[in-house]
Formats: sequence, C-alpha cells, structure tokens
Amino acid sequence: MNIRPITVAQYGIGPIGAEIARLLLTKPWVNLAAAVDIDPAKRGKDLGEIIGINTKTGVAVTPELNTKVDVVCHSTGSRLREVSAQLKDLLRRGSHVVSTCEELSFPLDRDITEELQQAARAANVTLLGTGVNPGFVMDKLPLTITSVCQKVDEVQIIRIQNASTRREPLQRKVGAGMTTDEFRSAVAAGKIKHMGLRESLMMVGNGLGVEFDHVTDEKIEPIVAKKEVVTQYLKVAPGQVAGVHQTIPGTGKIKVSLELRMYVGAEDVAADRVIVKGVPDVEMEIKGGVHGDRATAAMVVNAIPRVVSARPGVLTMDDIPISFR
Amino acid sequence: MNIRPITVAQYGIGPIGAEIARLLLTKPWVNLAAAVDIDPAKRGKDLGEIIGINTKTGVAVTPELNTKVDVVCHSTGSRLREVSAQLKDLLRRGSHVVSTCEELSFPLDRDITEELQQAARAANVTLLGTGVNPGFVMDKLPLTITSVCQKVDEVQIIRIQNASTRREPLQRKVGAGMTTDEFRSAVAAGKIKHMGLRESLMMVGNGLGVEFDHVTDEKIEPIVAKKEVVTQYLKVAPGQVAGVHQTIPGTGKIKVSLELRMYVGAEDVAADRVIVKGVPDVEMEIKGGVHGDRATAAMVVNAIPRVVSARPGVLTMDDIPISFR
Repeated sequence: MNIRPITVAQYGIGPIGAEIARLLLTKPWVNLAAAVDIDPAKRGKDLGEIIGINTKTGVAVTPELNTKVDVVCHSTGSRLREVSAQLKDLLRRGSHVVSTCEELSFPLDRDITEELQQAARAANVTLLGTGVNPGFVMDKLPLTITSVCQKVDEVQIIRIQNASTRREPLQRKVGAGMTTDEFRSAVAAGKIKHMGLRESLMMVGNGLGVEFDHVTDEKIEPIVAKKEVVTQYLKVAPGQVAGVHQTIPGTGKIKVSLELRMYVGAEDVAADRVIVKGVPDVEMEIKGGVHGDRATAAMVVNAIPRVVSARPGVLTMDDIPISFR
Repeated sequence: MNIRPITVAQYGIGPIGAEIARLLLTKPWVNLAAAVDIDPAKRGKDLGEIIGINTKTGVAVTPELNTKVDVVCHSTGSRLREVSAQLKDLLRRGSHVVSTCEELSFPLDRDITEELQQAARAANVTLLGTGVNPGFVMDKLPLTITSVCQKVDEVQIIRIQNASTRREPLQRKVGAGMTTDEFRSAVAAGKIKHMGLRESLMMVGNGLGVEFDHVTDEKIEPIVAKKEVVTQYLKVAPGQVAGVHQTIPGTGKIKVSLELRMYVGAEDVAADRVIVKGVPDVEMEIKGGVHGDRATAAMVVNAIPRVVSARPGVLTMDDIPISFR
C-alpha cells in the first residue's frame, strides 16, 4: 500500500460523480481534497450535503479546481468533444485523470486524442477513460478472457441488463413505456442510444490485433413487452417498449459482435456473457449481470492506483491491469 | 502491431515447452530463433521433429542458449529454487523471460526474488511467471472480476477440472486409480500436489491489498469415485480415487478461499467459478472450465507482447494487462 494517501478531486457531481465521491470517502488510501461542479446551487456547500451523506466532509464544492491533486475523477459528460477542454486543462495542471466519458474509453477522434496525448505526456501524467460499460464488461473483461486461447476465430459479447433495478432516468433513457413509434422517433432524434458500444468494439479489435474490414452502424431496436411490467417508477403495458436492443458487429480476421439489451422486466435473463470460438472455446457468464451504476463508480476508484503507476499518456483499459483496491 | 517480429527462444522442450513452441510457430509477430534443451537425445535435431510437427523449422535444439533474443519462454521446472540459476543467467544476457515455473507466479522466497529482481533491473528486462493455473483462472481472473466492486468481503475461487480430458501423466498425478491409502501415502511423500495454489492465494491477497492474518497449510484430500470411470488411459473402480481435492483459505480483512478439484469423470460439473461477496455481489462461471494444457501455452505466448512493453523487474500477472494476441 502507499505510504501517503493519494490526493483526489471529484470533478462533476451529478448522479455518477456523487456515487464516485461517496466511494472515495470510504477508501483509506484516498485523501479526497477537492470537489468541483459548475452548478451554482452546489457552490460553496459541503460535499457531504451534495452527495447525500450525513457527515461533513470539510470539502466545499467549488466551480473550478483550485488545488493540485494527484488524480482527478472526472464525470461531466459522455462526448469527448464536449469535455476535451476540461481534460486538457486538468492534465496541464499535472494531475492524472480518470474519466467516465464514454467516448474516451477508446477515443476515436484522432485530432482530439493527439491533443490530449501531447498534454498528458508534456505533464508526465496519465489519462484513462473507464466505467463498467464501456470500460469493462463488454471490452476489458472479454479481452482478458481471450488470453487463455491459442487461436480466436470469433468473440460474442452479450450484456442483458435488467433496467428494473436501475435508476429512473435510465429506465426512461432505454425507452421503457414508449410506443414503438415513439421509440423509433427517439432513436432517430439521437435520444435513445447507449454510448460507448462502438468504442468497446474497437478496443476489443485493437486488443486482439485485428483491423476490422468492416464495421457497420449500430443497430438500435425496441424490445417490446409481452406482458405488463411494473417498476418503482413506471408501468409498461404489453405491446409497449420495455427497452433497447443495440448491436454492433466487426468483421475481419476475427469476428467480434457486441449485443446489449437493457430493458425492464429482464429479471430472469439478466447476465453478462462472453463466448469465444477458438482453441479452446470459452464460455463465460456473470449471473444477473454486473449492476451498472454501482460498478461504474467502482471501476473509476479501483483504477486510481493503477493509473498512478502507469506510463504517461492517453491509455485505455486494455493498457492497465485492474482489480478491487 | 510490431514492425519487426519479436525474436523468441523456447527454453525447455518437455510436453508444455513443445506446446508453447508449436504455438509460437503460428504467430506472425514471433520469430522463433532458438530452442534449448539439455536432453542429449534432442541435441542437434530440428525443433520440428522434437515437437511432432511435419515441417522443418530450421532451428536446431542446443543444450545452451547461444543467440541473443528479445524474449525467452522458459519451461523447465515448477520449483523456483531449481530454476533460479537458469532464470538469472537468461536475464543477465538481456532477455525478457516468461516462465511456466509455478513458484515464480507469485514468488514467496524473498532471497531468490531479490536476486532475480536485481538481475532483471540491471539488464533492464522483465521476468514473469505465468500459466493458466497458477497465472490466470485462480488469481489474475478473479482479481480482474473484483474490479467492478465498491467493497469486497469474500472471494471464493473454485476450479473443477475434468482430468479425463487431460494427458495421462496428469491423470496419474492426481491419483486416479489409487486406493485411498495409496493416495494418502503419495500425498505424505509430496507426490500428489497441484503446485501454485498458495502462490495464487497470495497474489489475490496482495492484489486486493489485504494482508492475511492467517494462511493455513493446503489441505489435500482424495475424491473417491462413486461409480466406475474409464478414460483413454486408465480405469477407476467405485471406491478408488478419482482425483484430488486441494484447498487453501486466507483469513483477513477480506476472506479468500481457493478450491481445486481435479478428477476423472468430472464431465458434468467441470467449471471455473469466482464468487465475490461484496457490493455488488458477483458470480462468474466459465462452463466446462478452461482446459489446462492448451491454456498454459496460450498464456505464455499471449504474455510476450505485454512483457516486452512492461517495466523492468520481477512482475506477476497482477502487474500486466493480458489478452489473446
């Protein structure tokens, strides 16, 4: 273990940022030294109040980061273009950054990546995008599983998540309760889409050393309820949408396919599954699937000690080992 | 991918070494440049002949390593004390070394480790012990799985391997066909013991940041056949030993237990399983379990590109990311 705790700032205190902050406060090897959020309603308040715990943390929420910390946990947005200025600024100040930005998990925009790469290397710090998905169950974990194979022909990655146990915004986001027409309009408007599936596919391809000949667009289809589903927050009638079925395949020397089903009422079938066709075949299952909200905060915090000892630059989860800490 | 292939030597050409060599020859990013074995019967012969493939490799087996290579795949013994002189010599010659030596997977002998550490760092190269078990299914994989957890109270690691599908020496080694008395004598004489279980336990403990208050000795018990089992190589009558049940628990802030069952006739129950009690709970299973012989060679070869880009010194699987390559 480290002799002195790692000083950490939480940057962005929305639902995921708050979950990360609560977890950071339980770790003896972390000194949570700062909390940043632009929301005027949070400004100046004690972090404990904002994240719903009954103790004062002694850390006041500020609109900007004012102290030098070892690591910043960054959780403000899903799109790289929208958060890259924040990331560059944090790197230039000499902090490692672990971010939940989905598009950072395997950054596909070359220009932005190059700018971040330069900023990180110049300051001798590391930038990592992580989370449970993207970041683990549909990319890092399948890659790790393939290490027992002498030969890999195909990797099927399937995540079936029961949205009934997730927070209300997520249930709404997957389209639960919509008609199929409403669902298709929402998809066309870009409102229903799990972020990061393409990034996961590309991370897996890159890790396996395969350049895909062809990557199609993601397919986003409704999952229609066969019987009524009632959750804490909403009710879905038979024939209405229960959630989303999103797939993306990559074709090349190795065939890789990702399939994500997130819907309410998936109690009995929820699972994370990796099926490798090769030598040997491997079939892995996590029963019930890994719970998204809980695990994303865990991945970010568990990545901190690994990022501190990693090489500088923009890294992905395929570049670092990982475990609970 | 690398621009020039990685030059590799296979050091030790027993059953596992031969499996590694066959695999190395399939990899476009490997240039298999040398093959070493002390057996006079193998000396001077083409490697292809020794490893049972029908093509000449152009690599003659030599009793010592005569060429400088990037990486040596080392597979000559299970006990660190017996192979440490070989390892030191290879490191001093400036090669990275990936070894199947079970006791190297998480080296517990401080003096030997320190000597190897110095040799590796002085030559700016990396030494890694790996394999499927120890090296992956009962240590690296469970550690990786725990990364989705905010809190871990207990980790149960269970490997049930069907010895019926394994090579004859392994079926004999687990005691298949013995009486229980013969089995107990063989255990007392140190002849029946899966190597590396303690190393796996200590790697998991170290990775999770827990120092065990107490680690008991490994328990080695017979699994008795309830009905007749017939394999390609032997027959086990009801009441005779079908194989071995080996367990080791570690008690501390986090409870970790490893349980290995290797026996003939385990078709229906064979699996690798990781059960984490924590936040969230995680239950992972690999159906049928990962086949030992095939996967050990895979782990060694898949570790090569990771070792080449790792920091110098004595590393364990918990220090590097891993995937098929």
